[in-house]
Amino acid sequence: MTDIIVYDPADFHVHLRQGQLSRLVTPHVAKGGFNLAYVMPNLKPPITTTDLALAYKQSLEAIDPNIEYLMTLYLSPELTPDEIRKAKKAGIVGVKSYPRGVTTNSDGGIESYEVYDPIFKAMEEEGLVLNLHGEVPSDPESNICVLNAEEKFLPHLVTLHRKFPKLRIVLEHATTRAAVETVKTLGDTVGCTITAHHLSLSVDDWAGQSFHFCKPVAKYPSDRRALQQVIYEGHPRFFLGSDSAPHPIVSKSTATPTEGCAAGVYTSPILLPLVAHLLESFGALDNLQAFVSGNGRRFYGRTRGKDSPKAVRVVREKSKVEAVSELDGIKVAPFWLGKELNFRLGSL
Amino acid sequence: MTDIIVYDPADFHVHLRQGQLSRLVTPHVAKGGFNLAYVMPNLKPPITTTDLALAYKQSLEAIDPNIEYLMTLYLSPELTPDEIRKAKKAGIVGVKSYPRGVTTNSDGGIESYEVYDPIFKAMEEEGLVLNLHGEVPSDPESNICVLNAEEKFLPHLVTLHRKFPKLRIVLEHATTRAAVETVKTLGDTVGCTITAHHLSLSVDDWAGQSFHFCKPVAKYPSDRRALQQVIYEGHPRFFLGSDSAPHPIVSKSTATPTEGCAAGVYTSPILLPLVAHLLESFGALDNLQAFVSGNGRRFYGRTRGKDSPKAVRVVREKSKVEAVSELDGIKVAPFWLGKELNFRLGSL
Repeated sequence: MTDIIVYDPADFHVHLRQGQLSRLVTPHVAKGGFNLAYVMPNLKPPITTTDLALAYKQSLEAIDPNIEYLMTLYLSPELTPDEIRKAKKAGIVGVKSYPRGVTTNSDGGIESYEVYDPIFKAMEEEGLVLNLHGEVPSDPESNICVLNAEEKFLPHLVTLHRKFPKLRIVLEHATTRAAVETVKTLGDTVGCTITAHHLSLSVDDWAGQSFHFCKPVAKYPSDRRALQQVIYEGHPRFFLGSDSAPHPIVSKSTATPTEGCAAGVYTSPILLPLVAHLLESFGALDNLQAFVSGNGRRFYGRTRGKDSPKAVRVVREKSKVEAVSELDGIKVAPFWLGKELNFRLGSL
Repeated sequence: MTDIIVYDPADFHVHLRQGQLSRLVTPHVAKGGFNLAYVMPNLKPPITTTDLALAYKQSLEAIDPNIEYLMTLYLSPELTPDEIRKAKKAGIVGVKSYPRGVTTNSDGGIESYEVYDPIFKAMEEEGLVLNLHGEVPSDPESNICVLNAEEKFLPHLVTLHRKFPKLRIVLEHATTRAAVETVKTLGDTVGCTITAHHLSLSVDDWAGQSFHFCKPVAKYPSDRRALQQVIYEGHPRFFLGSDSAPHPIVSKSTATPTEGCAAGVYTSPILLPLVAHLLESFGALDNLQAFVSGNGRRFYGRTRGKDSPKAVRVVREKSKVEAVSELDGIKVAPFWLGKELNFRLGSL
């Protein structure tokens, strides 16, 4: 059992936040072994224009200039085909769609896709990627809740793909067997990210444990098994997007009788050792390079890092997940705090 | 729209705890409008013998002598047919079965029912009631988790009923359509309790909100609808058991990255107005008397209160759910804190 060298690990879905929290967590992309961050736009206010995205990118580069930040816009009625063309010229890579109200800062999310057809058409022409938070809003009358919100979304994915077959679409943070099976049936322009934590959690883990609560929620053990299985099979259109979503501990840990806690699991600082640990647990360690780099980079046409290829050594050595990080009184706790991983990052 | 008079309201499933917490919450049975409490035995140590049950009853009577406490034993290997006969003579009413590890203080719960056949036989002969926490333990390999643990338990209920057709069995705190439908198919010796909070909550409500987290967890909106529907229909074998389960706020509100929160929703202090409010919301207010008193009392053969019938006035008047209760530094928060009910308790 030797160490593993991973080339150009890329996290194709990460929340780097803003303000002090951003200063605290952005360096953790590199700490977790990654040199590419596909950055989500759900700030307050959301990143709805090219100019906002470029300013955000600049602020991230001021924190850690060694990461390649791929920027996204937040799909909203403000967006125009002209803005899509401007975004493309400015190097922006994707547009993220949030259904209204289903996760952190998604109040401005979309309710119906059809009004966005001109945007999608422009994206298809320009080669921008559509990143879908694939859940429909809860609706008790229709028996829609957090458990089936993803499955109920899948017909929208299929429709979008049929309508815009050349538009690259990523179904983000898949959590169900249904999602995996649907993505498999679609064409090469449809990819799918899987988080590290959804390879580990099921509903039992977040029932009463708010640090494991995220959106989409982890589902049945059989769903988790389907996510593991598609990585084990080495399917080329499934790749890592950590959806690492830090919240201050106080927002994660303390519910009141009248208010719940923030949704999100924070994996950035331990990401590569964690993914190696998890893939090994279900016999898929051989697919580590493809899952954390090759598949995603191929889908996005980013087969190499921005400079020379970066090699990262994953050392087979037990390591305890480190304590809470803090900056100016803001504290964040990593997933699996205090637990032991079978790997740690090493130097080359 | 006039006030409602309810006679002899009876809560056929309640946790009155021990020590300081018991002193804080036991008076809330009367505060919530009830004069009968069917008392759960999951203390530390559990109430496994007649003597322990009688001592526990005495401690409850010392706190509030005006409530009729119906006592239960905790099903465990210590229990013998002789102890069942002794319990019957001492006025103990039921035996509660907890599957191992699924809820508060259930570490000593059962793993297989067959070894208890002699106990069930004695209970059948003596007329003791078997109260089932109807969930099987989670088992990822078999895809069993908190969401389907109740449905997977139902075959055990059916088997027990077939084997001991004269044994009165109560499936406690049903949360699924499957449970409702199964109980309906069984004979008159099988009853089923429904909590107030499961008439209100679905999985969306406890996702990230630990104050709404309880076992069994609230399920899909369609399951909630089935619970409401069976009350609306006025089915005579379904009745209120609040499963009111207080925990100190600190145990409910604060998760750490490595430890979750306690399971339980606390409804005792607002129980009768809350149930009236909920039943009205789905058009079943006409069945209030049957649901909170008649059905359960008939099933248990307790058609009247221990003294003269007690009439309780439920006044149609908006009331805000009261603040946290406190005793010696222990604080408990009621369900729906700060929300408005359409009813309050009144004097006669």
